[in-house]
Amino acid sequence: MNKPFSPTDIETSQGAGPDVSPKVTTGPLTGSRKVYSAPESDADLRVPLREINLADPDMPAFRLYDTSGPYTDESATIDVEQGLPPLRRPWIESRGAVEAYDGRSMKPVDNGNVSGKHLARNFPNLRQPIRGAGDAPVTQLEFARAGIVTKEMIYIAHRENAGRTQAAEEASARLADGESFGASIPEFITPEFVRDEVARGRAIIPANINHPESEPMIIGRNFLTKINANIGNSAVTSSVEEEVEKMVWAIRWGADTVMDLSTGRNIHNTREWILRNSPVPIGTVPIYQALEKVDGDPVKLDWEVYKDTLIEQCEQGVDYFTIHAGVRLGYIHLTADRVTGIVSRGGSIMAKWCLARHQESFLYERFGDICDIMRKYDVSFSLGDGLRPGSIADANDRAQFAELETLGELTKVAWDKGCQVMIEGPGHVPMHKIKVNVEKQLEECGEAPFYTLGPLTTDIAPAYDHITSAIGAGMIGWFGTAMLCYVTPKEHLGLPNREDVKTGVMAYKIAAHAADLAKGHPLAQARDDAISKARFDFRWEDQFNLSLDPETARQFHDETLPKEAHKVAHFCSMCGPKFCSMEITQQVRDYAAKLKGDQAAESPETVEQARREGMDEMSEKFREMGEKVYVPVEE
Amino acid sequence: MNKPFSPTDIETSQGAGPDVSPKVTTGPLTGSRKVYSAPESDADLRVPLREINLADPDMPAFRLYDTSGPYTDESATIDVEQGLPPLRRPWIESRGAVEAYDGRSMKPVDNGNVSGKHLARNFPNLRQPIRGAGDAPVTQLEFARAGIVTKEMIYIAHRENAGRTQAAEEASARLADGESFGASIPEFITPEFVRDEVARGRAIIPANINHPESEPMIIGRNFLTKINANIGNSAVTSSVEEEVEKMVWAIRWGADTVMDLSTGRNIHNTREWILRNSPVPIGTVPIYQALEKVDGDPVKLDWEVYKDTLIEQCEQGVDYFTIHAGVRLGYIHLTADRVTGIVSRGGSIMAKWCLARHQESFLYERFGDICDIMRKYDVSFSLGDGLRPGSIADANDRAQFAELETLGELTKVAWDKGCQVMIEGPGHVPMHKIKVNVEKQLEECGEAPFYTLGPLTTDIAPAYDHITSAIGAGMIGWFGTAMLCYVTPKEHLGLPNREDVKTGVMAYKIAAHAADLAKGHPLAQARDDAISKARFDFRWEDQFNLSLDPETARQFHDETLPKEAHKVAHFCSMCGPKFCSMEITQQVRDYAAKLKGDQAAESPETVEQARREGMDEMSEKFREMGEKVYVPVEE
Repeated sequence: MNKPFSPTDIETSQGAGPDVSPKVTTGPLTGSRKVYSAPESDADLRVPLREINLADPDMPAFRLYDTSGPYTDESATIDVEQGLPPLRRPWIESRGAVEAYDGRSMKPVDNGNVSGKHLARNFPNLRQPIRGAGDAPVTQLEFARAGIVTKEMIYIAHRENAGRTQAAEEASARLADGESFGASIPEFITPEFVRDEVARGRAIIPANINHPESEPMIIGRNFLTKINANIGNSAVTSSVEEEVEKMVWAIRWGADTVMDLSTGRNIHNTREWILRNSPVPIGTVPIYQALEKVDGDPVKLDWEVYKDTLIEQCEQGVDYFTIHAGVRLGYIHLTADRVTGIVSRGGSIMAKWCLARHQESFLYERFGDICDIMRKYDVSFSLGDGLRPGSIADANDRAQFAELETLGELTKVAWDKGCQVMIEGPGHVPMHKIKVNVEKQLEECGEAPFYTLGPLTTDIAPAYDHITSAIGAGMIGWFGTAMLCYVTPKEHLGLPNREDVKTGVMAYKIAAHAADLAKGHPLAQARDDAISKARFDFRWEDQFNLSLDPETARQFHDETLPKEAHKVAHFCSMCGPKFCSMEITQQVRDYAAKLKGDQAAESPETVEQARREGMDEMSEKFREMGEKVYVPVEE
Repeated sequence: MNKPFSPTDIETSQGAGPDVSPKVTTGPLTGSRKVYSAPESDADLRVPLREINLADPDMPAFRLYDTSGPYTDESATIDVEQGLPPLRRPWIESRGAVEAYDGRSMKPVDNGNVSGKHLARNFPNLRQPIRGAGDAPVTQLEFARAGIVTKEMIYIAHRENAGRTQAAEEASARLADGESFGASIPEFITPEFVRDEVARGRAIIPANINHPESEPMIIGRNFLTKINANIGNSAVTSSVEEEVEKMVWAIRWGADTVMDLSTGRNIHNTREWILRNSPVPIGTVPIYQALEKVDGDPVKLDWEVYKDTLIEQCEQGVDYFTIHAGVRLGYIHLTADRVTGIVSRGGSIMAKWCLARHQESFLYERFGDICDIMRKYDVSFSLGDGLRPGSIADANDRAQFAELETLGELTKVAWDKGCQVMIEGPGHVPMHKIKVNVEKQLEECGEAPFYTLGPLTTDIAPAYDHITSAIGAGMIGWFGTAMLCYVTPKEHLGLPNREDVKTGVMAYKIAAHAADLAKGHPLAQARDDAISKARFDFRWEDQFNLSLDPETARQFHDETLPKEAHKVAHFCSMCGPKFCSMEITQQVRDYAAKLKGDQAAESPETVEQARREGMDEMSEKFREMGEKVYVPVEE
């Protein structure tokens, strides 16, 4: 296992290659360990959490929502050739109404007609696909509407509670503190709440029945704000090995879903490796592969090749599809006066198709047929914003909003067909134009979850667009966006490498968490408080381990104060050993505790009296402290 | 010139060291050149601008506000031993009412009593200090109130207009588009507007008469949002050479002011080198040096040592002082229940002093005396927020706002004394609690400019606090903060190095610009539009050169597509040569232009007709294009 592997460099054929696997990153984050938890009602569930032990043995270990899958479980056996265990398979089978069948035959065109040494080996252990049979519920939306609480919903409730079995005592205070703009975040998530939100279309559970390896998760504004990381080889560069590792790497740092935006050759085989090894939902943009099948010429696209591609990807297990069905012929001219025209790749493909054929978009016209296919596999819609603005100048223009209105219309069609739906959003938007995007989306699309790219709040900082967009992402998340699609430092410039993926994920974990804090999510502030207490107490190791990126935090600290001893020293590197502002505040606290001990300390007179009484004593103490300001931590 | 120099490593004595200078970074940013411009009324002024020539010779060069001083002027002679030319000296002298005098004698304690090889060489060309004599106006506020438009004000107006001589035609549209929350940003800045804003206390011009090297700039919410970079050796590490270079480096990337937060030894001499070579205002926190003079023991601080330090720094030319005069004895116990107590170093020092002595803060009690000193040199107040929150949990608490109310009271005292004032703000604040900070500050402090640190919108990301805080900085800038103090990736962890300084400046240039965009500043969107047009036209070099960081943008691009030819290729690295979304939109534009050529194209019928008429022609064209999607740029 875990031997080096470069699929595109090896002379091999489908399924017959040497027994070597992509190398992936395994092992827990520093200071963390994987634990599993189950709700009382369903002891068979193994909901993953990340647990951080704190330096003080009296403090309970801190538990976090964990996206990283078995890769961070020291006791797990990772075999990329086998893929992850199909944990949802028994749930799906027990619900019935699905059938196994001989799937679509793989064609050379699926991998761009490459052969010989250029063809990446396919995943060796292919399963027979399954699909919904008849009218019985298949999708999570259908189950929810039928009043059925699925195992996925129970799992999700426990996961969203981070394993808590009841609302925290301080939760109501935290919740009251936020401003959620009409969202309805409960203090404690029940399976019934999950079901209700899915039934209302306010949340989705992207969970293709052919991707049973996925650990159920939910996207909706009454849950933790999620983030997506895009990966994908482009025609220019990259390999299968890199893409699988990018997925593992992205979820290690917190990506809740991953979109495989691969183009070019080996697109089918790359995706299979990713899906079989992914514990998070995988999204794709099927038109990218359809375009490959017609030699990259949008004009040659038609319903048949698109349909073929949808089925191919449904059978593989893709969990959600970006479909740009809102790019209608009549909207295209609305982009003509834009500074940056149409910047969505899918939007451009469809615009070109519409113009070249002078027909209404086949995605729009065949939308019902698309729903019928996706329903059978419970693939969720991510209705694409093909006319999203690509610059500050183009934000919130008529083209963008015309498309959004059509996405609202299509949302209702998809819901009627039993399909789950989320809606993609911009793009590039200055701060003052962000809020109306959420308001309009919620209104037009019946509160279907919003899934936005950034938005970038200025165009002037290529190489720093993870930051320009983290500003917009934090805000739009606060206003009600359910999932934030990350932007890496390479946006507009090139393809993200491993380090860029991590940087993008970090920026978006920050934005998502800042949004949860501002919305008043009951779990959010606990982590801030834990890390701030650790900071105040100079528990450096706890501060590192509780942070989003323990490795980098530790490394930055060690650059200035590399000695091991400093990590428990009672001063920080900003102030040096002679004086530290954190240390004095402990003294203040001791003093004020005395003042506050008196219940009547509220009245000015009593405060004054207490102060005077305490003065001699405190004065003496502080003078003593003044002689030895630097107090080493006693271990 | 520019020979290597490590002042703290060389055996030397004050003013008698070898003729070697700190090495500093010189030369323009790639693709830019320094130009100077003057308003018609004052042809002697040389207002610096950065000019970027675009690839298309028909496009006018793009002009930007420039903070970088003569260091980026290829024709300038940089001699760090001489310092920068004292450009404001003649203006100050011509206004009269100042006197040169023998300044305070330098004392060993000014540099921490170090000697021999540990003492950094002092700046070799010291000037005699000057100060205001009598009651005639000295400060920019006094001149403004007297109806006098100073040279500084004229310079600033031209600078804020980026050399424009009238409002741009499209300015009103841009301005109407923003939301400035009651700010009054004009389409064009006149010297009289500058004077009026200063007279009202809504803006300050930090310009100590002993820092004539500074290029005048203004801080106020009706002007471009400014950023500050902190530098400073701490007791633990760093050297004079590094600090001078950090200043030059910070302004190269866009810092509008620099705060020297040095502690420990050589604090006086380090500051002198920085001031004599700084074209931007320099701020300090005098209590840091005062504390050094009493061996780091806050309890030993008193008015005499503080006053001595103020005068020392006034004579050197420091432009603004952070003074934590709002940390009153009666507020200290309000921090006791905080998660992170008092995190401001100055705040902690004063809290300790107050508690140990059981007296009201001498900064508060002597505030009038402090004003009298600062007025004589026109040193601006930056009223410090010693009780700012150090964690999400502590944001907007009573301690913070009690201090803010006192800062409002002190603002009026300082104004009465003729002093310019800005107000420092938090800290750590979740998104939903940011706006009220600005509203309360404007109300309590009579619209004196707000100057905030971040705020960080979550505590959980040490090593990424430039991002956690850029989110808060963008928002608080939009709401009305006049200057944003940067936060580097090393916040909470260690001292920023050269790369951290740049990263912090970049994150804050983004936040400040995003704020200007959202406020509707008439100059802001022009740069976004220019870079977006360049992006759309695949003018890669223009995109790089117009960006905040041309070097990194170019480097990132070249990682994926390193060949020189690609920089003019008609596709981007995200899509590869086979298909590019940007390219198709040009075709859309051509098509729509045809539709729109018809004035009546607004009615659906005519659109439909025009569409049909154009269809055959366009169809043919698009089919042709389909055969050769990748069109090389013709040079």
